Amino acid sequence: MTSATPILLTPGPLTTSQRTRSAMLTDWGSWDDGFNALTASVCGRLLAIANGTGSHVCVPLQGSGTFAVEAAIGTFVPRDGKVLVLVNGAYGKRLAKICAAMGHDHTVYETADDVPTTPEAVDGLLAADRAITHVGLIHCETSTGILNPLPEIAAVVARHGRGLIVDAMSSFGALPIDAGTVPFEALIAASGKCLEGVPGMGFVIAKADALAKAEGNSPSLALDLHDQHVYMRRTGQWRFTPPTHVVAALHEALLQYEDEGGLPARHAKYARNCEVLIRGMERLGLRSFLPARIQAPIIVTFHAPADPKYRFADFYAAVRERGFILYPGKLTQVETFRVGCIGHVESADMERAVEAVADAFRALSITTL
Amino acid sequence: MTSATPILLTPGPLTTSQRTRSAMLTDWGSWDDGFNALTASVCGRLLAIANGTGSHVCVPLQGSGTFAVEAAIGTFVPRDGKVLVLVNGAYGKRLAKICAAMGHDHTVYETADDVPTTPEAVDGLLAADRAITHVGLIHCETSTGILNPLPEIAAVVARHGRGLIVDAMSSFGALPIDAGTVPFEALIAASGKCLEGVPGMGFVIAKADALAKAEGNSPSLALDLHDQHVYMRRTGQWRFTPPTHVVAALHEALLQYEDEGGLPARHAKYARNCEVLIRGMERLGLRSFLPARIQAPIIVTFHAPADPKYRFADFYAAVRERGFILYPGKLTQVETFRVGCIGHVESADMERAVEAVADAFRALSITTL
Repeated sequence: MTSATPILLTPGPLTTSQRTRSAMLTDWGSWDDGFNALTASVCGRLLAIANGTGSHVCVPLQGSGTFAVEAAIGTFVPRDGKVLVLVNGAYGKRLAKICAAMGHDHTVYETADDVPTTPEAVDGLLAADRAITHVGLIHCETSTGILNPLPEIAAVVARHGRGLIVDAMSSFGALPIDAGTVPFEALIAASGKCLEGVPGMGFVIAKADALAKAEGNSPSLALDLHDQHVYMRRTGQWRFTPPTHVVAALHEALLQYEDEGGLPARHAKYARNCEVLIRGMERLGLRSFLPARIQAPIIVTFHAPADPKYRFADFYAAVRERGFILYPGKLTQVETFRVGCIGHVESADMERAVEAVADAFRALSITTL
Repeated sequence: MTSATPILLTPGPLTTSQRTRSAMLTDWGSWDDGFNALTASVCGRLLAIANGTGSHVCVPLQGSGTFAVEAAIGTFVPRDGKVLVLVNGAYGKRLAKICAAMGHDHTVYETADDVPTTPEAVDGLLAADRAITHVGLIHCETSTGILNPLPEIAAVVARHGRGLIVDAMSSFGALPIDAGTVPFEALIAASGKCLEGVPGMGFVIAKADALAKAEGNSPSLALDLHDQHVYMRRTGQWRFTPPTHVVAALHEALLQYEDEGGLPARHAKYARNCEVLIRGMERLGLRSFLPARIQAPIIVTFHAPADPKYRFADFYAAVRERGFILYPGKLTQVETFRVGCIGHVESADMERAVEAVADAFRALSITTL
């Protein structure tokens, strides 16, 4: 990457390594054995990260992560099923919107943006409504960076004999998820997040027996994960043209992920990035929105400065000029902005980002302390 | 590309230029103005190719071309609508399968793989069934390479006051389609075909007033073209994470397309490739499946040699070793194989491909004459 290219401190797409991007310099035939081997290798590695080898299968899907989320709802929830959607941010709301668009019966349980869903609440909701067949949960809400207690909620859902569908878009690969001990039917993530690939495909880690039972559920051909899986198992190929270059980049990113020490190392890197960022911003007088206890090391929401001269667009442009791309806030009640901790970036980059923010505020004559 | 990388003579993904692939070496923020400008530029150029500027809009969509086809059916056909699907190959059958998966009422009119649909047949079918609201047509059937008479069929459909949805996946950019004189509601293509981008996104050229009326039709959030368009018009951004590198590659491919002379030049290049290929294969004793009159210069289906020693897998491997990737046939009644004419390849490449085929047959001791 040239020095003129800004570093992306966003929740994805994010800054990738030169090695990952260079994997896109080759054209692959989607019917060729070499490409089939690449797909199989990607799926095997993703399954291993989730500790799902044997019990689960990995079904890749073209499109953004949201396409894979909708595919999971459509494939796993029977047409007469009912979904309990747990909401504390924009992605939970989107999950409810998907259910509504598909005509699925669903009910929403919402907590504030800074309040994780509790297993006790889920327990009560499932006991009270026996029509609920599935629960939809966002592991780490990208809209704030809040972490929901996946293992505890999964245990409650399993005790009630319902199915769990987890949007792990922002956490997969960086926060531990053990399919051996955390029961779920489907867990969804994408290429362009903590695995540090480029965007263009999602994937679903699916419990093998739950997927087998899901035949015929999907009201879509393109988003039918059962059909995608059965065809791929039979032929080694994707049903429809795969994003070959995106798959190749994800494969290369996964090799680097493993070389660098896998999930513990990825988590440690992001945790360092997050800490350096929060401490640096504190020095500038900028408070993070979430308490540390529920802050995932993925993306941090900061309160905007109280200075009335502050406007996000100006601030964004000034920081961009200084080499970093930030992200707008996604809260309706409070003026915030967000900074991602993920991607091919190190704590030194985060230090420089904090300096860029400080310099931008100086240039804009905005007081933060 | 290194000389070790085989040339793809397939219907896509195909061989792209180094310049196009190099556009993927930059990471883009999906929220950034720079990327929004890239998206707007791509959509504007695609609209111009279809001569739809002003009257039509271009709605890009994540995923493979089939995702965009399903999105067009879901968005344009009302839930109580009925689709007449015109079939003479695998992609027409897929269109019917999409209607079935979505629960849309539909009827199939099928002709043989080497028989184009006639406007007269469509006229009769529409006169006989007033419940039909939409007609689905494949412009160029990739399964054989057959070209259906789009302008004539479009005129008939318009005269009957029904909506036309055209899968122009394999033809867009190489065969002329004039939205000013050919009436359709939606015409679908993808990044990785005749525009010579990489695979990972589709797009729909939609009649603006038809799209405006389609609000609320879609039984999907991810595949709702109306929602995608309204959001993009308002914000300049994609609703869900775009395949940023794929978009950047398509933009670069479109610049080259224009530099090289646009559609007439692209068509001429492919027509030359097709002619060199067919003549070369004829010299080897290999007959093409379709008569020249209905053969689009996109992909050519050849009868396999009659020699009982012929097996496609061996032939494929032998040609691959010699630097070219071919494509299997898709006909159930006749043993065939296919060779694409599209991509960043010239007639000299096609000459070399013919030599590779001849050499492969010699090595396999297969008689073709």
